[in-house]
Amino acid sequence: MTDFTATRAQFDLPDGIIYLDGNSLGPLPKAAAARVARTVTEEWGQLLIGGWNRAGWMDMPARAGDRIGRLIGAPEGTVVVGDTLSVKVYQALASALELRRNRKVILSDSGNFPSDLYMADGLVRTLATGHELRIVEPEEVANALTEDVAVLLLTEVDYRTGRRHDMRRLTERAHAAGALTIWDLAHSAGAFPVDVAGAGADFAVGCTYKYLNGGPGAPAFVYVAHALADRVRPALSGWLGHEAPFAFDLAYRPGAGIARMRVGTPPILQLAALDAALDVWEGVDLSDVRTRSIDLSELFIAEVESRCPDLTLASPRDPAARGSHVSFRHPEGFAIMQALVARGVVGDFRAPDILRFGFTPLFIGTKDVRQAAVILEDILSGRTWDRDEFRRRATVT
Amino acid sequence: MTDFTATRAQFDLPDGIIYLDGNSLGPLPKAAAARVARTVTEEWGQLLIGGWNRAGWMDMPARAGDRIGRLIGAPEGTVVVGDTLSVKVYQALASALELRRNRKVILSDSGNFPSDLYMADGLVRTLATGHELRIVEPEEVANALTEDVAVLLLTEVDYRTGRRHDMRRLTERAHAAGALTIWDLAHSAGAFPVDVAGAGADFAVGCTYKYLNGGPGAPAFVYVAHALADRVRPALSGWLGHEAPFAFDLAYRPGAGIARMRVGTPPILQLAALDAALDVWEGVDLSDVRTRSIDLSELFIAEVESRCPDLTLASPRDPAARGSHVSFRHPEGFAIMQALVARGVVGDFRAPDILRFGFTPLFIGTKDVRQAAVILEDILSGRTWDRDEFRRRATVT
Repeated sequence: MTDFTATRAQFDLPDGIIYLDGNSLGPLPKAAAARVARTVTEEWGQLLIGGWNRAGWMDMPARAGDRIGRLIGAPEGTVVVGDTLSVKVYQALASALELRRNRKVILSDSGNFPSDLYMADGLVRTLATGHELRIVEPEEVANALTEDVAVLLLTEVDYRTGRRHDMRRLTERAHAAGALTIWDLAHSAGAFPVDVAGAGADFAVGCTYKYLNGGPGAPAFVYVAHALADRVRPALSGWLGHEAPFAFDLAYRPGAGIARMRVGTPPILQLAALDAALDVWEGVDLSDVRTRSIDLSELFIAEVESRCPDLTLASPRDPAARGSHVSFRHPEGFAIMQALVARGVVGDFRAPDILRFGFTPLFIGTKDVRQAAVILEDILSGRTWDRDEFRRRATVT
Repeated sequence: MTDFTATRAQFDLPDGIIYLDGNSLGPLPKAAAARVARTVTEEWGQLLIGGWNRAGWMDMPARAGDRIGRLIGAPEGTVVVGDTLSVKVYQALASALELRRNRKVILSDSGNFPSDLYMADGLVRTLATGHELRIVEPEEVANALTEDVAVLLLTEVDYRTGRRHDMRRLTERAHAAGALTIWDLAHSAGAFPVDVAGAGADFAVGCTYKYLNGGPGAPAFVYVAHALADRVRPALSGWLGHEAPFAFDLAYRPGAGIARMRVGTPPILQLAALDAALDVWEGVDLSDVRTRSIDLSELFIAEVESRCPDLTLASPRDPAARGSHVSFRHPEGFAIMQALVARGVVGDFRAPDILRFGFTPLFIGTKDVRQAAVILEDILSGRTWDRDEFRRRATVT
């Protein structure tokens, strides 16, 4: 049984803040500050160039990859960390298209995070070989898996509403249609149990600054199924993905397996923070996280619906169909979120009208949830700000 | 006149080390440790998600870009920081090829850093539209600028020998042939005065962890000439290069000018270190840096050639034809460099036989140079290690 009092104690949270935005940027794990400081002063400062070997910097992307792999059901040696999520989307997409050369369609949905769609669009335009990015509504994905689809590119959990796709079912459907799958786990990794290998995903990507608490701008990760890893030829064929980076050959030869998805020099300070953040997960059972996240979000929905009738639930009512955040709609959502933040309840706003609240059991408990609902009620009832104040604040961004 | 005693005092260098590898990884600027710690504990820890606006995180890539711009002759608003150098090479190349759609050749040279060639190779294979990466010897570049060349991709300073291309002349030649230019400034930025705008370069890229001292894995930069910046359509079209990233539109619209070369979420901890490292350059005149770097390297060459006749100069003898490092060849170069490092003189080795020494006047003086030459003489004369010890060490990597 996961001890959530113990996990909470591992975070540095500002006094008076109820942080319901760990789904956007996870808070600072206490150990990360010391770890980064050590990397800066003792490793960079004292070992200098020697840090690459003597402090193990060069292996950090693979080590962090394996640690994340354990949280998403990926076997050892199938995940590597680096770059940004957008870059990893591009790498996975280019690899998938090369493996399905006779097909021209990238299928995605309107609930995908826009940057994934932008990267797909950029690849399609760069290729200029008649590829098409086809965007359908989330509920139409299964039926849109026609024989011309090369790859299905989806984010498992909708960043606005929290609606969750059925990864296993859609992957099966995609494979039945002869398509490959790329799953973006930005709102999944660390939020609930994920089983990329069990679901048969071909590629998965994700970021580490949300539920994994790796810090602002923490690097992304990419998973490639074992069966494919030695077959993909990376579009972004950087030297650290080379079979022998330090041979400095003029010709590129891809490294073995997942190593070829590395590109350039890894960001060591960010990786140090991430490594400390991943320590928090030792002894945490993601099934416990899921159970508690559902308890917290169900409680929040019940409290908000009874206290704030003007808010409309934007997330699926069935917790099994959600990720780990809950969203409500309100036409004055932006001003309401400003008022909440001013009262110490930090969620976020997504245009045009969505108030988004993340439930991250590692550091959020039932008391936080009840208090957040009470403050939200206060605000909506006019006890915190009057309408003029709302209007004034709404224009100041 | 630049005060090099003052710049040296701004670095944390381990006792007993003569660090001649700032061309590989710059040492720790003292202010960087405090700056990173503040970013971690006060910004990430206390501001949480609010750091993106309240700590100015979102603007850091543009601010750092402008600061680097001042060191490479790039006007305000033409440089942005992010990703790795390899990724920036890919972005620039893809943009250049799109601007020269009727030409199929990427011209480069065998002195280019291999990762640049690998990225070009990856792009050529991904495009699969008959493009060719043509690699010639460095001295043949000018004559190889034929009418089929779309883009000339060169690293100004050879990472092994320090040989320096004539950026202005080759850019003129490339333009006369109708080709665009991409200059990799990895061993130029912070090493000597660079004038990308004056030389007419179309694109430039570089890393910030060498002479700019941004730390291990510090992000790269990209320059796009003002006249082109609004015309390029980025291949890596990420959300932070979008005209309105937080509108979350489904369709990509490139941001204005250099902003479109941004891709994903920027690495804030690395950018904090880089920002502190760039403070060191305030009050530094790069002409002074160049003069002193030449003095130091000329002294080193003279000392080494008089003390160590077994070493052969691998760098051009004319300092004007070199960057800021000097290389010597020796068949037992690997073991010699091991011996040097064991004696506290840190340079590096590049296969098969190159000993590389970087001269970075911000923290290296004439006393260091003389002492390094004396220790090198000691080693080569057998006073430090006997031949057996050499052999033993040479097999342990």
